[in-house]
Amino acid sequence: MRSMTTRGEFERLRVVLVGARNPLNIGAAARAMSNFGFMKMRVVNPYKVAFREAKSAVGASELLAKAEEFDTVSEAVADCTLVVGTTAVGKRELQHPLKELEDGARVMRKRMGSSKVALLFGSEKIGLTNEELSHCHWLMRIPTREEHRSMNLGQAVGICLYEIARGMRGSGRAVGKKKVATAGDVERIAVVMLEALEGSLYSRPGASRVAEEKLRRMLRRMELSPNDAAVMLGMMRQILWKLKNGSANGG
Amino acid sequence: MRSMTTRGEFERLRVVLVGARNPLNIGAAARAMSNFGFMKMRVVNPYKVAFREAKSAVGASELLAKAEEFDTVSEAVADCTLVVGTTAVGKRELQHPLKELEDGARVMRKRMGSSKVALLFGSEKIGLTNEELSHCHWLMRIPTREEHRSMNLGQAVGICLYEIARGMRGSGRAVGKKKVATAGDVERIAVVMLEALEGSLYSRPGASRVAEEKLRRMLRRMELSPNDAAVMLGMMRQILWKLKNGSANGG
Repeated sequence: MRSMTTRGEFERLRVVLVGARNPLNIGAAARAMSNFGFMKMRVVNPYKVAFREAKSAVGASELLAKAEEFDTVSEAVADCTLVVGTTAVGKRELQHPLKELEDGARVMRKRMGSSKVALLFGSEKIGLTNEELSHCHWLMRIPTREEHRSMNLGQAVGICLYEIARGMRGSGRAVGKKKVATAGDVERIAVVMLEALEGSLYSRPGASRVAEEKLRRMLRRMELSPNDAAVMLGMMRQILWKLKNGSANGG
Repeated sequence: MRSMTTRGEFERLRVVLVGARNPLNIGAAARAMSNFGFMKMRVVNPYKVAFREAKSAVGASELLAKAEEFDTVSEAVADCTLVVGTTAVGKRELQHPLKELEDGARVMRKRMGSSKVALLFGSEKIGLTNEELSHCHWLMRIPTREEHRSMNLGQAVGICLYEIARGMRGSGRAVGKKKVATAGDVERIAVVMLEALEGSLYSRPGASRVAEEKLRRMLRRMELSPNDAAVMLGMMRQILWKLKNGSANGG
């Protein structure tokens, strides 16, 4: 799914949880990181008990075991060339430039091509403090409704990482064309269905061309796959056989 | 942030949680829905205690209070013209077409311009069962690492809704809409056809669930228009009537 050239970019992201207090959230963040292939977590001043509990979370224990602990944001981002803070703020006065997730992720990806980038998430209750924000080059926001901006930490991490990873896969994915049955296959179904319908007095025998054409057009619109066309033909043949042979015990 | 023209599209999505067991996950799903402005939740056969607990979750209580409860997937999607299942599967044999989230979301948005669309999430433990999947037109997958595909339910809901909402902002699209029959209309055809096929000994009476699911999937793939669905139902009813009344022991 992912080429070797992008692998390095994934390894250059540092997901930094600052002051996280809920083990479930830490575990969920780790799990989302693992889902999207960003394996380098850093934690700043976590609530110790929560962090220990989170380490036993399912599905991302290795990632959590390798997480690096720091006392300050300053130390946690020291080796990064770009530091991005996440925020849910709307109108609140911001000291920082603010980018929406899609734009911010693009800038981050570019930088991750050559050097380390930190993405900061604040504590569940208060987000990032002004001191913590002061280490950031700019802020990034997930575009939520004004009426309900504040997101769950694990979900915010998941969505940010999804968006960063999304742009890395490159756009040129060949979309599989839907395979469609040949006109001949469809015609065979039409013939059998018409006979069944005549046998059921839905259409008069030697039915009007109008009804026949209607049925044929409908079958074409279905765009049956070759396999579905074969199944449909088999079904209709069996029904027709039964209509003709009435009470035979075909079992 | 959002124009009045897109508002209607947001209201046409039904987020359907099937057999969810964890109140935290239900709450997280509801919260993400509220974050992105999709307010219509449906739950199928939820674990009652979990659902009650989730209703007290912070931030999305009104949405949860208005959630509609159903006993079956069939009923929960009856008024929708497009039913999309989510899956984490990789190589497991799939009976359904599979789209990556970005492509799938595009198709869903288009349909939401004119009619209701259901997005199904399975239970935390096992995802959607084959019977539940048989109600889906196609499946959608969040592009996660092969080594760690399975996502947390709340995060999966968040990411899917982020992606669907992402494409709705921005460029005003007015795409020509193909009218499609509701899931309920298609289900009526399935029921009659099954009876006809059983009457023809194509399927054994009380046919295997596999045959039933196969037929249902095929009918969904046809994407019948409302008019074609009515015609098809009429034809099948007539054939069934004839099968039953044509001979004494015909059914």
